[in-house]
Order: sequence, then structure tokens, then C-alpha cells
Amino acid sequence: MISTNLKIYKKANELQQVLQQLKLSGKTIGFVPTMGYLHEGHEQLMKEARQENDIVVLSIFVNPLQFGENEDLDKYPRDIERDEQVALKQQVDYIFYPTVEEMYKEGPSVTVKVEKRTDVLCGKSRPGHFDGVATVVTKLFNIVGPHNAYFGLKDAQQVAVIEGMVADFNMPVNIVRVPIVREQDGLAKSSRNVYLTAEERNEAKQLYASLQIAQDLIAAGERNRERIISAIESHLVKYTSGTIDYIEIYSYPELQKLDSLEGEIIIALAVAFKSARLIDNCIITL
Amino acid sequence: MISTNLKIYKKANELQQVLQQLKLSGKTIGFVPTMGYLHEGHEQLMKEARQENDIVVLSIFVNPLQFGENEDLDKYPRDIERDEQVALKQQVDYIFYPTVEEMYKEGPSVTVKVEKRTDVLCGKSRPGHFDGVATVVTKLFNIVGPHNAYFGLKDAQQVAVIEGMVADFNMPVNIVRVPIVREQDGLAKSSRNVYLTAEERNEAKQLYASLQIAQDLIAAGERNRERIISAIESHLVKYTSGTIDYIEIYSYPELQKLDSLEGEIIIALAVAFKSARLIDNCIITL
Repeated sequence: MISTNLKIYKKANELQQVLQQLKLSGKTIGFVPTMGYLHEGHEQLMKEARQENDIVVLSIFVNPLQFGENEDLDKYPRDIERDEQVALKQQVDYIFYPTVEEMYKEGPSVTVKVEKRTDVLCGKSRPGHFDGVATVVTKLFNIVGPHNAYFGLKDAQQVAVIEGMVADFNMPVNIVRVPIVREQDGLAKSSRNVYLTAEERNEAKQLYASLQIAQDLIAAGERNRERIISAIESHLVKYTSGTIDYIEIYSYPELQKLDSLEGEIIIALAVAFKSARLIDNCIITL
Repeated sequence: MISTNLKIYKKANELQQVLQQLKLSGKTIGFVPTMGYLHEGHEQLMKEARQENDIVVLSIFVNPLQFGENEDLDKYPRDIERDEQVALKQQVDYIFYPTVEEMYKEGPSVTVKVEKRTDVLCGKSRPGHFDGVATVVTKLFNIVGPHNAYFGLKDAQQVAVIEGMVADFNMPVNIVRVPIVREQDGLAKSSRNVYLTAEERNEAKQLYASLQIAQDLIAAGERNRERIISAIESHLVKYTSGTIDYIEIYSYPELQKLDSLEGEIIIALAVAFKSARLIDNCIITL
């Protein structure tokens, strides 16, 4: 059964008014913010939102504020028609699909500045990236007013930053962490996977394999941070042509350095292939 | 008739839950954010909020984030018991009175950065001040979730910054501008007036007098920005012992320099007396 009630809004204030009325009538709203080019990872977010809320809102907006000058804003993949079909299949009720002008009328002159959880992992090499994410998410939360918002753990640092912002700003929204969806060989689903050459695509499964090696070591009792990172590094160097950007272990979601591995931790890595930079991670509780 | 239903909350999440329920039941919420030590200017905000909303929420929080290092955070006047009496008289329903720790648990690590309307007037000499204002107002709006929020035009730049933020962040709140309330001799009401010596207090009325001279000139057809500013300056130099910080004319609320005076404009000034720095302004439409 496919819902045929999918409505697309391009104007923030129009969607805001409609959703405010629905909330007043007692409906709960689940929100899935995306940059489009939807894959099965996104579909998992929509599925969870569909199960847990009366109304599901999907946003599709390639946010220029979170791309650096030398990043892939212009070539970021877009396919709104296919995205609509995916949203229909997942019984989304509303798509918010604004233009850049609608979102940043006078330029981004009021922004959110994030000073924690951002100086490590991807944030280290992408200055301003999480400010851009936090700013657009603030706007989207204000427009949609969701009870629950769904974020995939593939972007684990993004989830940590958003959780920190929601707490610090007292935002009245519940952040739902959704596990990574993977290809059959273990590669985490990502819109950027389409960039990979056939050879790189074949090597890309080794990111997940290296995380499994780390988990096996930990399961066998290893608690030495350096040795675990070395094991991941050796594996990636041996089996891929990519350049390792980082391999790190931190507390989660605080993203603090750990003297001893305990509590909730994240093992995260980024590997730059010639055609695309890939990230992966696992979060485990010790 | 005095309402006896005044409730005081110190915990953000408790107040947030109560107000969310009230909103769900269809009540409208009017919000008056203050730093306490309430005077008749604040009372005017509460009166308007009382007339236009089912529920009135007052916050009292001396926000450290908006004070500079050499500013008067420690000696900022406080009197919560008297403030409660004022709130009772104005039939406020809820006071939010948090501690600094409740508002900034882990330090202000996620903040709002305002890059427009802040490089002029008071913002020029108070770097970071409006970031601090915007950050605390963002938090307060998220906690209270008001339909209408009331700000006094004495802090006209603050109103302009808040209006800009609400627009840029798509905040679902209506900002209500409330006119300046003045003493009989014209001095704008302010918590800081208590600092003035008797002599300074007597001179302080000249701020308003100088604005009236400017308005008279404009009413008589004067449109030359420099001549109007000169007339204000001459008056203040002649009749006060204070040091002029600025006298400016801008578009309002954009706070842009004007080639020719037209549309909605603000004439704003700041004068530093030995005991306190005072500001005043008038907004007129040409």
C-alpha cells in the first residue's frame, strides 16, 4: 500500500503553518532531514519515523553552508524525481524541498557556532562544516517543529553535535539515532558511493572489515587504544589504495579522548579514495 | 484584582513540559524575557502580553553571556522578591527564574553568532554582546515556546537583532515591539538609572530633549543627516557632563547607513556618565 497523500512544500512559512495546525490537533511529527539522493540508509530513517509518528516530514536540501570551498557542493548528486518515488514508497506525508534562496534569503547572517565535539574526526579537516549543519538543522527544526528527528549513525559526529546542540539550546525535540545500513559486503550506504570506480568500490568493503577486526580484538579483551588503531591501519594499508585521513577512538557522544576504553565508545575512520572520501564507524558499549 | 496563581519555575524542562501542554490545549503564550529588577518599562511589556495572550510567562535571568569582561555583571541590580510582587500585580502566570548553571550546564559551547545589525551603535563597543543576547533568547524561546514575545524599544538594536534572528532561523514566534516608557521629565526607564548621582539624574533628561530637537528639525523639513546629528551633539555637550559614545541615524530595523533620510529610521544615542552609560532613541517614519 502506497500513500498517495504526499505533499511537497517549497516555502518554509507555508509548511510551518500546516504542521503547527497538525500539532495543535494532537498529531505527532517525525522528521527526516536529508540532502536528497536517497538511499536505503535514508529509507531506514523514514521507516522508523513512519512507525513512531502520525505525520512524517522529509526535507531535501543540499545545504551550501556545510560544504567547504574545495568540497563537492556543485557535483553533489541530485535526483528529486527518484527521491519523490522513494518518499512515496516509504509513506512520507510531506516533503520540504526549498531553494537555497528560500533558506538563506539575505545570506547566512545569523548562524549557530558549535564549540564542542567538532575539533576531532571529520570536524578537524572540515572547519565550519558542523556550524553549517547546526545552522540548517536549527532552521529546519523551527520550520517543522518535530517531536522526533531521525539521524543515521553513519554520520556519528553529526549525531553527537546535534545531540549537544539540542541539549544546549533546550530544543523541544527528541533525537533518534538510527543504525548504519550497509551493502551486502559491509560498505556503509552513502550518496557518495556512486562516485567510486569499480576497483575502489571493491576495496571500500575493507573499511567495515577493519572495524570488525577492531571489534574482535576488543571482544577478545584488548583495551589498548593504540594497538586497536594499529590493527585497523595495517588492514586498510594492506587492502586498499586509499589514504587514511583518521582512525580514532573516543567516548560517545562526547567525543573525548579516553585514557582507558570503557563506557560507550566510537571507533571511527575516514579513508580518501581518488574518487571519494568514505567514512565509517561503530559504536560499542564496554 | 491580583492573580494568585503565579508559579515560579527554576528548571527549564519542567516549565517546557507545562507550557507544551498548555499550548496543546489551545492556549496562547505571551513571553516577556528580562534580566529582572523590573521597572515600569517591563511592566508595560507584561501589560501588553496580558492583554494579548491566555498565558503570560516572565523570565528573570541576568545572562552572563551578554556582559563583556569589563562590564557590570557583578553589580547588575537584583531584587527577586520585589520582582515577584511586580509580576503578581501584572497578573503574570509563570516566572522562569533559572540559575546560571541551569542555563549553561557545560559552559556555552553552542552559541548563536549574529553577523548583521551588530557592527553599529552599542554593538560596536560591546563585541559579543548580541551573540550572548541571541543565544539566551534562542534558549528561552525553545523553553517557553511563545506565540508572542515582547521587547522594549529602548533597546532598539536588541529588537532589530532579535527580529533578524527570528527571520533567519524561521523561529515560530511573533516579536512585539513595545514603545519606550519614560519618566515624567523624559528619561527612558532603565534598571541602570539607579546608578546615577542626583546631578547626573538631572542631566539625564537631556538625552530625550536632544532627540526631540532632532524630531523638530525633521518635522521642519531637515533631511541632512550630519546637521541633525550636530544639533543633538551641541545640545548634549552644552547641557550634560557625559561623554558621547555615539549619535547615529540608520534605517530600522536593518541598521544600514542612509544616503537620504526616508522610510523607517532610528535616531539613537549613547552617553556615558561617570556612574552609568545611558542609551535612548526614537524611531520615526518619513
